[in-house]
This record gives sequence, C-alpha cells and structure tokens, in this order.
Amino acid sequence: MNKQAVVAHILRDCFKVPKYRQGTAFAPANIALCKYWGKRDLELNLPTTSSLSISLGSFGAKTTLYLQEGASHDVVFVNGKEVKAESTFVQNLVAFLDLFRPSPFSFFQIETEVNIPIGAGLASSACGFAAVVGALNQLYGWQLSMSNLSILARLGSGSAARSFWHGFVEWNCGVEKNGMDSFGVSLCEKWPNLRIGLLIFNAAQKPISSRIAMQNTVLTSPFYKLWPEKQACDLNRLREAIQSQNFIVLGETAESNALAMHALMLTANPAFFYSEPQTIAAQHKIWHHRRLGLPLFFTQDAGPNLKLLFLEQDSEAIEEIFPELEIIAPFSTHEMHPEGASS
Amino acid sequence: MNKQAVVAHILRDCFKVPKYRQGTAFAPANIALCKYWGKRDLELNLPTTSSLSISLGSFGAKTTLYLQEGASHDVVFVNGKEVKAESTFVQNLVAFLDLFRPSPFSFFQIETEVNIPIGAGLASSACGFAAVVGALNQLYGWQLSMSNLSILARLGSGSAARSFWHGFVEWNCGVEKNGMDSFGVSLCEKWPNLRIGLLIFNAAQKPISSRIAMQNTVLTSPFYKLWPEKQACDLNRLREAIQSQNFIVLGETAESNALAMHALMLTANPAFFYSEPQTIAAQHKIWHHRRLGLPLFFTQDAGPNLKLLFLEQDSEAIEEIFPELEIIAPFSTHEMHPEGASS
Repeated sequence: MNKQAVVAHILRDCFKVPKYRQGTAFAPANIALCKYWGKRDLELNLPTTSSLSISLGSFGAKTTLYLQEGASHDVVFVNGKEVKAESTFVQNLVAFLDLFRPSPFSFFQIETEVNIPIGAGLASSACGFAAVVGALNQLYGWQLSMSNLSILARLGSGSAARSFWHGFVEWNCGVEKNGMDSFGVSLCEKWPNLRIGLLIFNAAQKPISSRIAMQNTVLTSPFYKLWPEKQACDLNRLREAIQSQNFIVLGETAESNALAMHALMLTANPAFFYSEPQTIAAQHKIWHHRRLGLPLFFTQDAGPNLKLLFLEQDSEAIEEIFPELEIIAPFSTHEMHPEGASS
Repeated sequence: MNKQAVVAHILRDCFKVPKYRQGTAFAPANIALCKYWGKRDLELNLPTTSSLSISLGSFGAKTTLYLQEGASHDVVFVNGKEVKAESTFVQNLVAFLDLFRPSPFSFFQIETEVNIPIGAGLASSACGFAAVVGALNQLYGWQLSMSNLSILARLGSGSAARSFWHGFVEWNCGVEKNGMDSFGVSLCEKWPNLRIGLLIFNAAQKPISSRIAMQNTVLTSPFYKLWPEKQACDLNRLREAIQSQNFIVLGETAESNALAMHALMLTANPAFFYSEPQTIAAQHKIWHHRRLGLPLFFTQDAGPNLKLLFLEQDSEAIEEIFPELEIIAPFSTHEMHPEGASS
C-alpha cells in the first residue's frame, strides 16, 4: 500500500477539481505525553504503538495555499520569507503536495506563519502538515471528516495525525495494512488549570531528524523490543490520570515515557543524545525542586528543549525558577478556539 | 549463605592468629569496560552478569592495617586525615573488618593513601577494599591465592574482586550460591599503547551510592531484563577486541556498554542520571571529534566523570581538546609494578 492508494481511497476522483483558488487553516502544535517512536510502516507513517498528546493552544501553524496555474514549481514562504527549494523542508512538502495536484502541471504557493521554532523538537512538522491538509480541504471543498484529515496529514508527518484538535488527543496505532484505522481521536476531558512551559535552549534545527533517529533506534537498540510493553502501560496510566485529574500520575508517567525514549537513543548504534548541557542542568533542577515538594515534571522530544508540566497554582514559583519560561494554558477559552481548528 | 560462612570456608580457623602487628598492600583502581550493574545476591555481592575491567596502574589505594589491642574502636585515616566514625565509608569498613578480628575486642588502625577522588565513580571503594584484604593477608600471614583474595574483597565491594591485578581483568558472575566461583581472573594480553584519560568534572561524593542506584535499576527499570543479553554480547566483543588488539571495537563496545547502563538508570523509578552538564558537553565533543576521524571513546561509571579511551599516538591531539586530562598508561613498566600488586 502506498500513499497514492490511501489518497485515492479517501478522496476517490473528486479531489482533482478545486472549488476555490485558495484555502487557509490553522493547526496547533502538539506535545506527546506518550511518545510516537517507531514505525510499523515507513511509507505510510504507521506507528508501532499508540501515542497521546496535548495540543499547545494558539501555538502552531497557520497556512494558506494558493493554486498558481501558470507557475513552474511550488513556492514556499515561512513567516514571510521564501524557503529555498533545495531545503529538506520544501522537498518533503513538495513531495506531499504531489499527492494532491489537480494536474501534474499545477503548482502551489504556500504561505505559513509558524509561532514556534522549526525543526527543534517542538512539533513544527506536525502542525505544519496538519495545517496544509486543512488548507487543502478548504481549497478543494472536500468537507472531509476529522479522521480522514488526520490520516492524510499522517502521510506527511506521523505526529501530524494528532494536530487537528485542542486538548488531549490519542493516536491509535491501528492494525490495518492501509492504516485506515490509524488516526487521531480527541479526548473529551478538559483540564483547565494544566499548564505547559516551553523551556527553549536551542531553537536551531536539530542535527539528526527525528525520522532518522527513530528508525535508527528501532533497528539497533537492544532494548527497543520492550518499548511497546512500556508504551502500553504508560498509555493506560495517562488515560486514567486524565480521567481522574491526577496530576502527579500524569507528570510522572509523561516524564518517565520521555526519558525511556531518550534512553533508547542512548543504546542505539550509533548512540545519540538530543540533550545538551543546559537540558541536563534543567532536568537536575527540576528533580531538585520536586524533591523539595514542587509538583513539576518535564517531557522532551527529538531536540534539546524541555516542555514543563505543572498546575496553574504553581506557575509563580516555577517562573521564579525558570524566568525564561513560555507558559501555555492549553485549555484557556482564548486558546481553545483559534481560527480553523476544531475544539 | 552469609559473609561469615564464606570467610570461614576460605580461612578455616587459622585466621584468628595474626602473624604480624601490621600489614600493607596496594591495589590499583579499575575501570569496567563491561559494567557490573545488578546483583544476584545482595549479601555476598554476587553479580547478575560477568564484567571486564582495565586497571589504572599506579592509581589506587595503599593501605596499612595496625592491630591495636588496647583500643576501643577502629580508627580510619584517609590521606593522613582521620575520617569520622559516623561516615558511611567508615561504617562499611568497620562492618567488613568485623569478619576478620582476632577477637571481638581487637580493633584496627587503618591508614589509607588514595590518589583518586573518593566516592565519585572512580572505583575508590573497589581499590580500597582490595587493599584492605591485601593488608589483612600480610598481617595474618594467610598466603591466600589470588582468587580467594578476590572473593574476600568482593564481600566488601563487588568490583573490588577485580582490583588485585594490573591490565585486563574479567570477573565471572559464577553460578554457585556461596559465590566460590565468582572472582577476578587476570587476562594475559598486554596493550602497551592503550591510554586512559581521566576527565574529572566533579570530585565530590556522588549523591546516590552505586549500591542503591544499582538495586533501584534492577527492581524498577522495564528494560533491565534485556541487560544480561547485552552484557553477554559486549563481553564477547571485548574479549575478541583485546585478543586482536582492535581498538575501534574495544572503544565502541565499552562506550555502548556504559551508555546502556546509564540508559537503564534513566528508565528506573525514580529515574536518575549521574551525568552533569559538563559530562554531556564532553560527550558531544568526543562524538564530534570522532565524526572527524579521531579514534576516541569514553566510558562512565556511577558518577559524572568520564574515562577516555584512546591510543598513545593520539595523546597529543586529545590533550589539545581536553587540556585538563589526566593520562594513564595502564601497561607501562613503571605502573605495572607498584608495591604490593601482582602484575
């Protein structure tokens, strides 16, 4: 099964007739509390295990696509600046758009506003591909279901499957070969006083893409075969923690899950480690304050930056420890209804 | 089986008659290339897996024991300074010496000169207990075999079983319940141009003893059950690398083994990580220079410091990268024959 077949399965033939000349959508970034690390299908980005995320409210990507009939190639602008056609980012995006052109001679102008650092483990590709799919949906007038949007975005970047909703989202690994059962599902639970703090040490592009790091881990870590077991256990604990609003269990489980993912990378061949000295210093600081009684946890993705998890009542104490922290209230009314995203 | 029974098995009753009033021995520190992490018997320090080390030449402990008949308690001096009786170090040492007193009313004065930082993951307790056993052997005139000395020292600290020889030492885990088959064995291979560099960031006592860290890992890491498999594979590769003097395989395997041990700690509950920001900075530096072609590897024990592995011909280049490096030539003639250690 390849990507074209999935697109044809969802869209039949109707997708080749654009309804409008342009389409716009916003998609929030999402941070996995139970990580996506390992694929059962490389082509379709089907994961080995299910994962669970929290979206970052108004932090994400807003993308407008324009159909440019006379053009000879796609043109991509990120935050008002044209991105070179040779960049991996543009090449991946062009390859993804190839799945959706009215004709092989149709090209797009893509304008994206992203308010998080790109390629630094802050889920920029997830919200990026989700916003592109949302914009395509509008441009073509497809009126697709959320699960179909999620499946299409997954073909661009796995974790994009989780970027169509606010709040908690679960992405089921599914079992079908064509992945039609592997899409995001929004959990109904809200958690108004939950806070996420972005601790950004290095907003530069990461030296190893998560795509390559993930595959290298799967193929070479001697501990990887126990990862699915750990994931299943953590996912259950997170679901329970969300239902019972047990913050300690949520924080402990998310932190443990992230550390296990990085432990797997340490045991890959070659070993690699996204943490930088500042990452380790902050982790020790968090552990120190937790031993003193502060309910503060972290999660970390394929980059050196940390995402802190805490409750609203501790915001002030935590800002004193990390004055540079960018605090997000993922369930605030304002952030729950950004343009184009479903709440 | 308890410690007393092992001592009685090795020494029968003859050990209660001291031949001299004092005894002295030196034991080199040793660095595991294939780690000891997990016990099959907590009381006897019997390991779950075999391990392999390289000794640090003249770096280690030189200990003199004096029998003090009139005294009311043991007195311990480290590097000329008396250590408080309440310290964990003295309490462990006193409990160990309880196994070897001529009468319950006999006490020792212990004078130790240690030329490596203590309790900082530099194998100070390994060489410390080995030197005490060597000194007891001389004081009592036991003339024990090396394997019996190794077994007795293991009762004080597991890795002390490897501190009776220079060069490469393998410590077999054994299968017997009383551990009489679990002692160090010296490998005959020399490797004259092998170098070890000590990169000491923090010579302070570690916040969590390796004894506790190890047991916590065994009990709580979901990946620990795959550790014995990884160890068996790494041990074989190291044996082959030593026999064929293949430095790249030696370095890769030792580094991978150390990283896997730290990965296990990251996945323990609670998670812990001996690395400090400087540790991570140095590891990234080593990986960077290795990508540029420099054959430089590291290993890391239960502390933030690193032990670099390289060959003599690269010493100059490596000293330029790490000017603070303390370089040890473990097979140099001078370092192979320190007073009291068998070569």
